[in-house]
Amino acid sequence: MRILVVGGSGTIGEAVANELGQRHEIILASRNHSDIKVDITNIDSIKSMYDAVGQVDAVIATTGIVHFGALTSMTAEQCYIGLNSKLMGQVNLVLQGFNHVNDNGSFTLTSGILNRDPIRFASSAAMVNGAIDGFVHGAALDMPRGIRINAVSPTVLQESLNKYAAYFRGYIPVSAAQVALAYSKSVEGAQTGQVYIVG
Amino acid sequence: MRILVVGGSGTIGEAVANELGQRHEIILASRNHSDIKVDITNIDSIKSMYDAVGQVDAVIATTGIVHFGALTSMTAEQCYIGLNSKLMGQVNLVLQGFNHVNDNGSFTLTSGILNRDPIRFASSAAMVNGAIDGFVHGAALDMPRGIRINAVSPTVLQESLNKYAAYFRGYIPVSAAQVALAYSKSVEGAQTGQVYIVG
Repeated sequence: MRILVVGGSGTIGEAVANELGQRHEIILASRNHSDIKVDITNIDSIKSMYDAVGQVDAVIATTGIVHFGALTSMTAEQCYIGLNSKLMGQVNLVLQGFNHVNDNGSFTLTSGILNRDPIRFASSAAMVNGAIDGFVHGAALDMPRGIRINAVSPTVLQESLNKYAAYFRGYIPVSAAQVALAYSKSVEGAQTGQVYIVG
Repeated sequence: MRILVVGGSGTIGEAVANELGQRHEIILASRNHSDIKVDITNIDSIKSMYDAVGQVDAVIATTGIVHFGALTSMTAEQCYIGLNSKLMGQVNLVLQGFNHVNDNGSFTLTSGILNRDPIRFASSAAMVNGAIDGFVHGAALDMPRGIRINAVSPTVLQESLNKYAAYFRGYIPVSAAQVALAYSKSVEGAQTGQVYIVG
């Protein structure tokens, strides 16, 4: 298969490329650190990326930011950081990608644990993750030409504990390599409309 | 209790007012059809509403629109209809409402079945409902002064089958009066961070 990994320079993206690169052709795209550059908050940038990449069998998104902070001082603008980036960035990869994904191909998006098992200061992340999970459930029923769509919802990464351990006390971390297996299941399996919980 | 129902002229809003009005003071707000007018997509309008209403013990939101349509022709702008209205309209009622809700009060938002049990043409609704459910899970951990937050996630209403039956074949409808009981549980009970599934 020919697989586009958007967010390919991140911890999960690199692990996904390592896992799937053993068996498939991987094309990496990211904001700054890949041969293919893309800003997922800009639809024209997404279109240019797809034009540069051509046809693929799978699109994997492991990218997008959200704002973390106390709810009582959170602004609507801070909520829209995640809505515009992690949510609509990934959704726009789907909406703009139909003509670039081969029949029976797949989209795999990334949500996260925080809507299922919340922590403080993460209302916006919980909102965005829930939106991605919900979108995948709904979108699977509307996909054309046998194209599938799933999401991967990982807990905190072992590789991120040096930065985030204080926020995730008591959470059992998973390695990026373990998380990458869920993307393999999504791309190389036959399921659709699933949210793969890792951790 | 003094309870503000935003969306008080809708089918659910009216049923909630009927249920809770038996025991509490109800203030209705809506876009056009209540004494208190509010456009939930406009933060200044939300602020003016709260200034007009004063202090309350509970805010209930039963309002907001989303776009329905085939995913393959859906635009980002159409996705933002629901993000700006049903999602951020309700979230902004919370963000702007802290100073107007008494200690140990509550917010109750409205999501819906479509992220849990999807139908065609409803990717955007599934996305928005998932976001609301996720937001409530996260926000409950960040609420000040004992204020609680829950969501109600109803299936299709009996009262709406004349318009939507063809989209919900096989779904067991519920009456607005049954749905209203979940808002009663949220407002008059002690739980927080819950998504009450009705139907």
